[in-house]
Amino acid sequence: VVTFGELLLRLDAPGHERLLQTDRYRASFTGGEANAAVALAQWGIETRAVSKVPEHEIGQAAINHLRRYGVRTEAIARGGPRLGILYVETGASQRAGKVIYDRLHTSFRQVEREEFDWPSILSGAGWLHLTGTAPAGGEAVGAVLADALAAARSLGVRVSLDCSFRSALWTREEASAVLTPLLAQVDLLLGSEADARGLFGVEASGEESLAALAEKFNLRWVAYTERDSHSASENTIRAMFYDGHQVAHSRSYTIEIVDRIGGGDAFAAGILFGLLCGWPSQRIVEYAAAAACLKHTIPWDFNLASRDEVERLASGESTGRLVR
Amino acid sequence: VVTFGELLLRLDAPGHERLLQTDRYRASFTGGEANAAVALAQWGIETRAVSKVPEHEIGQAAINHLRRYGVRTEAIARGGPRLGILYVETGASQRAGKVIYDRLHTSFRQVEREEFDWPSILSGAGWLHLTGTAPAGGEAVGAVLADALAAARSLGVRVSLDCSFRSALWTREEASAVLTPLLAQVDLLLGSEADARGLFGVEASGEESLAALAEKFNLRWVAYTERDSHSASENTIRAMFYDGHQVAHSRSYTIEIVDRIGGGDAFAAGILFGLLCGWPSQRIVEYAAAAACLKHTIPWDFNLASRDEVERLASGESTGRLVR
Amino acid sequence: VVTFGELLLRLDAPGHERLLQTDRYRASFTGGEANAAVALAQWGIETRAVSKVPEHEIGQAAINHLRRYGVRTEAIARGGPRLGILYVETGASQRAGKVIYDRLHTSFRQVEREEFDWPSILSGAGWLHLTGTAPAGGEAVGAVLADALAAARSLGVRVSLDCSFRSALWTREEASAVLTPLLAQVDLLLGSEADARGLFGVEASGEESLAALAEKFNLRWVAYTERDSHSASENTIRAMFYDGHQVAHSRSYTIEIVDRIGGGDAFAAGILFGLLCGWPSQRIVEYAAAAACLKHTIPWDFNLASRDEVERLASGESTGRLVR
Amino acid sequence: VVTFGELLLRLDAPGHERLLQTDRYRASFTGGEANAAVALAQWGIETRAVSKVPEHEIGQAAINHLRRYGVRTEAIARGGPRLGILYVETGASQRAGKVIYDRLHTSFRQVEREEFDWPSILSGAGWLHLTGTAPAGGEAVGAVLADALAAARSLGVRVSLDCSFRSALWTREEASAVLTPLLAQVDLLLGSEADARGLFGVEASGEESLAALAEKFNLRWVAYTERDSHSASENTIRAMFYDGHQVAHSRSYTIEIVDRIGGGDAFAAGILFGLLCGWPSQRIVEYAAAAACLKHTIPWDFNLASRDEVERLASGESTGRLVR
Amino acid sequence: VVTFGELLLRLDAPGHERLLQTDRYRASFTGGEANAAVALAQWGIETRAVSKVPEHEIGQAAINHLRRYGVRTEAIARGGPRLGILYVETGASQRAGKVIYDRLHTSFRQVEREEFDWPSILSGAGWLHLTGTAPAGGEAVGAVLADALAAARSLGVRVSLDCSFRSALWTREEASAVLTPLLAQVDLLLGSEADARGLFGVEASGEESLAALAEKFNLRWVAYTERDSHSASENTIRAMFYDGHQVAHSRSYTIEIVDRIGGGDAFAAGILFGLLCGWPSQRIVEYAAAAACLKHTIPWDFNLASRDEVERLASGESTGRLVR
Amino acid sequence: VVTFGELLLRLDAPGHERLLQTDRYRASFTGGEANAAVALAQWGIETRAVSKVPEHEIGQAAINHLRRYGVRTEAIARGGPRLGILYVETGASQRAGKVIYDRLHTSFRQVEREEFDWPSILSGAGWLHLTGTAPAGGEAVGAVLADALAAARSLGVRVSLDCSFRSALWTREEASAVLTPLLAQVDLLLGSEADARGLFGVEASGEESLAALAEKFNLRWVAYTERDSHSASENTIRAMFYDGHQVAHSRSYTIEIVDRIGGGDAFAAGILFGLLCGWPSQRIVEYAAAAACLKHTIPWDFNLASRDEVERLASGESTGRLVR
Repeated sequence: VVTFGELLLRLDAPGHERLLQTDRYRASFTGGEANAAVALAQWGIETRAVSKVPEHEIGQAAINHLRRYGVRTEAIARGGPRLGILYVETGASQRAGKVIYDRLHTSFRQVEREEFDWPSILSGAGWLHLTGTAPAGGEAVGAVLADALAAARSLGVRVSLDCSFRSALWTREEASAVLTPLLAQVDLLLGSEADARGLFGVEASGEESLAALAEKFNLRWVAYTERDSHSASENTIRAMFYDGHQVAHSRSYTIEIVDRIGGGDAFAAGILFGLLCGWPSQRIVEYAAAAACLKHTIPWDFNLASRDEVERLASGESTGRLVR
Repeated sequence: VVTFGELLLRLDAPGHERLLQTDRYRASFTGGEANAAVALAQWGIETRAVSKVPEHEIGQAAINHLRRYGVRTEAIARGGPRLGILYVETGASQRAGKVIYDRLHTSFRQVEREEFDWPSILSGAGWLHLTGTAPAGGEAVGAVLADALAAARSLGVRVSLDCSFRSALWTREEASAVLTPLLAQVDLLLGSEADARGLFGVEASGEESLAALAEKFNLRWVAYTERDSHSASENTIRAMFYDGHQVAHSRSYTIEIVDRIGGGDAFAAGILFGLLCGWPSQRIVEYAAAAACLKHTIPWDFNLASRDEVERLASGESTGRLVR
Repeated sequence: VVTFGELLLRLDAPGHERLLQTDRYRASFTGGEANAAVALAQWGIETRAVSKVPEHEIGQAAINHLRRYGVRTEAIARGGPRLGILYVETGASQRAGKVIYDRLHTSFRQVEREEFDWPSILSGAGWLHLTGTAPAGGEAVGAVLADALAAARSLGVRVSLDCSFRSALWTREEASAVLTPLLAQVDLLLGSEADARGLFGVEASGEESLAALAEKFNLRWVAYTERDSHSASENTIRAMFYDGHQVAHSRSYTIEIVDRIGGGDAFAAGILFGLLCGWPSQRIVEYAAAAACLKHTIPWDFNLASRDEVERLASGESTGRLVR
Repeated sequence: VVTFGELLLRLDAPGHERLLQTDRYRASFTGGEANAAVALAQWGIETRAVSKVPEHEIGQAAINHLRRYGVRTEAIARGGPRLGILYVETGASQRAGKVIYDRLHTSFRQVEREEFDWPSILSGAGWLHLTGTAPAGGEAVGAVLADALAAARSLGVRVSLDCSFRSALWTREEASAVLTPLLAQVDLLLGSEADARGLFGVEASGEESLAALAEKFNLRWVAYTERDSHSASENTIRAMFYDGHQVAHSRSYTIEIVDRIGGGDAFAAGILFGLLCGWPSQRIVEYAAAAACLKHTIPWDFNLASRDEVERLASGESTGRLVR
Repeated sequence: VVTFGELLLRLDAPGHERLLQTDRYRASFTGGEANAAVALAQWGIETRAVSKVPEHEIGQAAINHLRRYGVRTEAIARGGPRLGILYVETGASQRAGKVIYDRLHTSFRQVEREEFDWPSILSGAGWLHLTGTAPAGGEAVGAVLADALAAARSLGVRVSLDCSFRSALWTREEASAVLTPLLAQVDLLLGSEADARGLFGVEASGEESLAALAEKFNLRWVAYTERDSHSASENTIRAMFYDGHQVAHSRSYTIEIVDRIGGGDAFAAGILFGLLCGWPSQRIVEYAAAAACLKHTIPWDFNLASRDEVERLASGESTGRLVR
Repeated sequence: VVTFGELLLRLDAPGHERLLQTDRYRASFTGGEANAAVALAQWGIETRAVSKVPEHEIGQAAINHLRRYGVRTEAIARGGPRLGILYVETGASQRAGKVIYDRLHTSFRQVEREEFDWPSILSGAGWLHLTGTAPAGGEAVGAVLADALAAARSLGVRVSLDCSFRSALWTREEASAVLTPLLAQVDLLLGSEADARGLFGVEASGEESLAALAEKFNLRWVAYTERDSHSASENTIRAMFYDGHQVAHSRSYTIEIVDRIGGGDAFAAGILFGLLCGWPSQRIVEYAAAAACLKHTIPWDFNLASRDEVERLASGESTGRLVR
C-alpha cells in the first residue's frame, strides 16, 4: 500500500491541560494517510509513505517516526520551508477537544511534480491510499495527485479515498469541487452519510446512501463510520460497508476515549486490510470498526493495536481483562 | 469587579497519586475570590484582585499567576511571613479527593487596615466580590473587610458574598456568627440550601429556601448550586437563581470530573457576569451553571473556559465534539 | 504477619501509552505477599517481609520501598543475579491492560534453605501469608516454603494462601499439583470459584463452592472475590467469606479503575486484618471488599488506603465527596 | 519603555537532547524586544510591548506570558495566520547549540499600519526599543516601523536599536541596506565590532570602533558586547559603552552556561536601565554586563534576575554562595 | 546514634529554573540532624531520628522518607499544625542558589517535654547528635533539648553539635547566647573558624582556632570545614579535625556541584562514623571530607554515597571512571 | 556494514539521581555494534543489524529504535525469554557513573545457528563489525559468530573487532582466550594499549604498541583511543590509528560530559566510515576522534552527530557557537 499526503508535527498539551495553560508539549507526527500506513505496517503489510518534509531535523524526525513503526520512507521528498503543525487540546466531558491548525506555507504544499517518480513508487503496489486533506493543500498538491492517479490507473493499482472533510481547511463547496472529479478514479470511498450528502449530493439515508453513492460514481466499495458523541470522554461508533451487493453492519462500540484523533484513519486501514486479505464483507467491517475502536484507546495518531488485538475485539471479546 | 480574599499556593500530587506516594507537586495558585476574578477577566470584564502576599518569590509568583490571566494586581499588599498552602490529592471512583490546608499564620491573616485605600480601589467598580473563607481568617481580615464594605456602600458598589463554608476552617456556628451580620451589606448571596439552613437558620426547602433567605436578610439576588456526588469521578450539578420575583432553574450536568475544585467560584463568576450583562434570570442561571460545569473539566482552580464555550454549553450544545 | 514471596521491579508505561510507544517508565516494586504486608502495615499491624533480592542498588531499592511503608525487612536475604521485572501497560475501554513478565533466573528463585531461620523469623507471628506465585518459582523456593510451613505448624502460626493463579507462570495442572498438597497446612484460602474448580476439583458453584472447598481440605476459612470486567476502565467486584458456618457476602462495587493490579492482595490483607481484629464475618468481608475496591483507585501495587478510609467505604459511604 | 518586535513560540528539547531525539518540548515565548521589556519590568520600569499575534490560544498564550512578568500588552494587535516558532537544541562542550527558525508567513509579518496608533502608544514613553530582527521581517514591518520612528521623533522619545544580526534571517548586505538608513533616528546603538564593520562599514577596531561608529552616524551612545566562545558550555563575555566622551569597560565574566539565548537582550535592557537611572557610564556598563552574565544562568529568554542580584554582581560579588 | 531536630519539606524548582518561573516542584524531606542520620544508616550504623511532625499525610511522608533509608522513626512525635518548608532554587555560575524558609509555627516548634521519653530513647545509644538549627526553634524546643542533654549525660551518651548557623533563622548574637551554654555538654563540635569567632569569641585563626576553641569550652573534638566558593557551580572544600592533640587536615576537593545542600551534615556524619569506628584522626578527617565532597554530587539532602565509595575517594581514587 | 551483537534495554535514572533514589527511568536501547550501525546510518552508510530479541513488545521496541535511525533490521531473529538490561546512573565530579548489568539468560545468548543465513545477510556488504561483548555471551553466540566469520571470509567481507573489554562480563584471561583466536580473521582491531597488553600480550607502549599488535596478529589496521578521566564530569580523549605504515594521531579533546557511554562505538564507526570513504589515515583518525568526542555530548548510546558536525569539529572548529 502506498499513501500520499501531508506529514505534520502534532503538539499536545499534557493530560487535560488547556493550550492556554500549558508550557509543555508532547510531540508526535501525524498525517491521515501516514496513520493508515502505520496501522497496515503493524498488521504486516508493506507500506510506503509519500510526502514532502523540510530538510532540517524536524523533517527528519517525521520520517524517523514513520520508520520506527515500519513504514518505508525512501520516496518522501526533502525541501521547502516548514512542517505543518497541529496544536491539540484533549477535551473532557462537556468540554470539546480542540485542534489548532498551523499548516499553511508548508513544504508539502510546495511539492513539485518532478520530485515523485510515480511509476517506480507504485510499482508492485496493490493500493494507493489518499485522503481529502491532501487535495485541500492546493494546486501544487493537486498536480502531483493527478500524476499519482494516472500512474495508478496505468499500473492497475487500486485507489482508496477517505473524505476526511475538515472545515478548518476548506468549505464543503470547495471540497466538493475538488473531490468529485477524483471519484472517477476511486475504487474505495471512505466517509459518512454526511459526506455523501454534503460533498457529493447523495440524498439517500441509512444503508441506501452507500449504494446510491456507489452507483452514482461507479465506486466498487463504500464504507461509512458513524459517531454518536455523548461527550468528549465517551462516544459510540459503528460502521457500514457496501461491496456492490449488500451493506454489512459492524457491532457498535461505546468507548471511554483516550485519544479520539486518528480513528477514521484506523478504520480506513482496517477496510484496506480486509480487502487485501480477501475477507468477506462482514469480517471486513467488523475488523475495521474494531480497529477504529481500539485507536480511541491509544495516545496520538498511530493505531498501534496488533492484528491479534483487533481480531479478538472484532470477534466479540471486549471485556478488557488484564493479560498476564 | 473587585475581589478581596486570600491567595494560596496549591500543590497537587500528579494524576491519581496519593500525597503519601508522591515526590512531585504541580504548583498553581488559588483563592476563591481570585478564581472568580480570573473567570471574569477571561470573559472580558476588568477585574482587580486585592489580597496580601509575602515579598519573596513565592508571593510574587502568586501575583504573576493572576497577571498572566489578565487580572489587575496593583492593590495587592506585600509583606508578612508566608503564603498559605493547599496540598491536593485527586480522588477517583470510591476514593474521595482530599485537601490538606496549611493556611495559618499567613501574610493574608496579617493584613493591616492602612494597607488598602478602599475608596481608591473601588473607584469605578461595579461589584465587590467576597467569599466566606476571607472572614474565616480572623479579626485582622474582618477589620479590613469592614472597611471595604463601608467604602462599597458609600460608593454604591454592589456586594456579592459566596458562603464557601469549609469545615476545616471553622465550625458552622463560628461561620454563622461572622457571616450573618455581613448580610446586611450584601446584594447577591451565593450558597446552597444547606448553607441557608446551617448558617442562616432558614428552614424552607427547595425553591422556597431562596425566597425565604432573600426576604429574611433583604437580599436582592440569591443563587444556589446543588451537587450529587455519585463518586469522586462523576458528579451531577444544577443551579437555581432567585431575582426577587421568581426562581430560574438551570439544566443539570453529569460530569466526568477532571478537577472538582473551583466549581463554585466559576458559578459565582457566571452569575456576576450575567448580572453585569443585564441578562434575564434564566440566561444568567444557565450561563453560570454551564461555567461551573466546564470548570470541572479544566485542571486547577481557574476557569479558563471562554465566553463562547460557556454560551454554547448553556444553550444546550454538549456533545463535546472535537473542534477542528 | 510474616509474608514470604518474590519481590519484583514493576515498570509502567506512563498514562495510557503502550509499551511499544514509551521511552519512560515509572518504577515501583511489587510482590503479591509484600503488597498484603504493606496494606497491613498501613493499618497498624507489624509485618515482616521475607524474600531474596540481589545485592546491588536495584535490590536495595526494593527493600527500601517496603521500609518506606513500614514493613520490616531484616529477614530478606541478599544475593543472586537479578530482580524479576514486570512491564505494565495500562488498558483503557475495550483495550486490555497487559503485563509482560521477565521473572526467570531471579535471585528469589535461587533461595537457599540456610538463608532463612524460620523459627526465629516466625517467632511471635500470628500469621504466615503466602501466594501461589511463590511455589510457581520452582524447587528451591518450594524447599524453603516447606521449611516455613513446618516452622509455622510447630509454632502455632496460622497460614493463609492466596491462589493467585497466573497462566503466564504455570499451567492449571502444574499449579494444582504443587498447591494441593500445601492445603493441608493452610488455615485460610483466598481464591475464586474458578480456582476451586480448576485447581482443586471442587465442582460446587456459588456459596456452596466455599463450603465444599473448606470441607474437602479441612480449611478453617475460605474467601472468594468475583470480578465482572465490563471494560479495562470499569469493573464490578464483590466478595464472599466462609467461616466454617456460613457465607457472608459483601456489597458490590462498580469501579472506575486507576490501577487494577494488587486488588487481590488488598483483599487478602483485608481478610487477615479482620481476623486479627476478631471481627464478625460480615464485617470482615465488607472490610476486605472495600479495601480491594479502594486499591483499584490507587496507582501501583500497594494499597495505601487508610483503615479509616476502608471502614468508611465498608460502611456504605461511597460518594467520593472531596474532603476539605 | 516601548518595544516593537515579533513574538515567537520557543520550543526546547529537554536537557541536552537533540531535536532528532526528543518527543517533548518545553514551550516558552520570546522576542528580542520583548525580552528586554521583561527585564526592564523586573527592575521596576513600566514597559509596553507592541507586536501582532494570531487570535487563537497560542497567540493569547504569548500575550499572557508577557503579562505574567509585568509587561503591558494592550497595544499588541490580534490577527493573521500564525505565530513564528524557534526550535531550540541546547549545545554542550564541543557540540554547538542549534536554533531552527520557522518564522515565515507569520502574523507579525502581516502587520498593517492602521493597527498601531503610535502617538498614543508612545505618549509618555522615554524610549522606543527595537532590534534588527524586526525590519528583517519585510516591507509591512518596515512601514509600521517607519511610523513608529516618526512618532518617536515628533514626541521626543529616544530610540535604541540592537543590531541582532541573524544570518538565518538575511544576509549582511540586506541587513546593511535596511538598517543603515534607520541609524539617523537612533540615539543608542547596541552591537559589536563585527556589526560595525560588517553592517556599517566602520573599520576601526577596539575602543576606537565605538567612537567611529558614533561619529559616522551621529549616535549619542554606542554599546558593544564581546563574546569568547570556549565551548557550548563555557563562554567569556565583556562589554564596552561609549557615551560620546569615553569608552567604559566592564568586568569580564566566564560563565558556565545554562541558556545562552537572550544574553544580548539582557544587555540592551541593562544599558537602557542605566540611562533611565541617569547613572555614570562605568556603572551603566557594569550593570548591563552583569545582567547579560546572569541571563546565561537562567532558562529561556527572559532575564528574571532582580535588580538587586544584578547590582551585587556588577559590584564584584560573584561567589555564587547559597543564600539562606 | 540518636538525632533530634526538625524535619522539613524541601520543594525544589527543577533543573536551573527560578522559583519565579516554575510550576513544578520536586519534593523531598530534610533536616540537618536527619540528614546525618541517613548517612550513618547507609554506612551500617543503627540510627534513630527524634522530631515532631503533623499527623496528616505530609507528616507521614516525612517519616516514610527516613524509614526508606533505614532510619528508625518510632520516637517521632505526631501532632501540631504543619511541617516547615524550604523552597529551593539551584544556582548556576555567577547566580547564587537560594533557599526561602517557611518554617515558623511548625509542629516541631510546638514540641512538648512529655512527648519524649529520653532515657528510653537514648538507652543503648553511643551519640546524641544535634545542630544549631534546633535550638533556633525557640523555647519549647530548648526545653526538650535540655531534657535530652540531661539524659545523655546521665546515660554517658556522647553529644555532638553542628553549629549550622543560618542568618535567616537568628542573628549571630542570638545564636551565641543560646549555643554557648550548650557547649558544656558537648563532646564534639562541628563548625568553622567563622563560627568560632562569631559565635564563641575565639579569635585564633587557622589550626590554632580549633585548639583554642576546644580549650576554652573543654571540648574533646573539634572539626571544621572550609569552603571556597568559586561560583554557584564550583566550590573547593577541605576539612580539619582536632582530637585534643593535633590537627589533621584532609585533602581538598574542587567539585562540580549537583546539590550543595547537606554537605555539612554529611561531614558531621563522617566524623561521627570515624569516631564510632575508632579510626585515627587522619583517617577520620579524610573520610568525613570525602563524604562531604560526594554529597555535593547527589541530589537533595541525603548523602546516599556508600561507605565503599567514600573510602575510595578518601584514599585518593578520584577519577570518576565509569563502573561497569 | 553488517553488525552482529546483543541489543539491550538501557534504563537511566534521570539527571544525576542515584539508582537508589529514582522512581523513574528513561528507556533507550543499546548494543556496542548497533550503536556503531546507527552512527554509520546517520552518515549515509547502509547498515544492517543482526541480533536476537524476544517476541514481545520490549523486543519489538528495540527493533523499532534501530529502524527509527535508519538501520535495517530484517535479519534480527525473534524468540527467547528476555532482553538484557543496563541500569545506568550518571556520575558527577568525584562520583563515578555506574552501570548495573542484568544480561544473563537473554534471548541473544540463546541464538541458534539456523536463525541466521549469513551468506545472504552479508551479501553485498563491505564490513562485518563485531565487539568483544558478543563472544562474552557464551558458546551459542560463539557458534553463530564462527558462522558469520566464515561467511565473511568466503565473501571477501572485511571484519572489524572492537575489544570492548568489560570486567563485569568476563575476566581478562577469559576474554584473551576467546578473542585471540578470532584475530586471525580480523582486518581492523579497535582497542587500547591496555587491551594490547592485557588481552593479547603485546608489551610495547605508545605508538609502538599498535605496530607490534598489527604485526603479531597480521592485522591490517589498528586503532586506539586513550582517555584521561579527570572526573566523572570531564575527560580528555585522543586517538591513534595505524595503517600498516605509520601511526596517525588525532587532536585531543577535553570534554564536559553529557553521556559517556557509547564513545568507543562512535569511534569505531568513525574509523569504519573513513575507511569506506577511502580517506588518508590522518583524516580518518581525526574524524573518528571527533565523532567520539561529540558522542559524549549526546544523551544515550547513539551518536546522532551529523557527518557535517563531525567534519567541522575534526577540522578544528570547536567553539560550540550557537547556530542560528
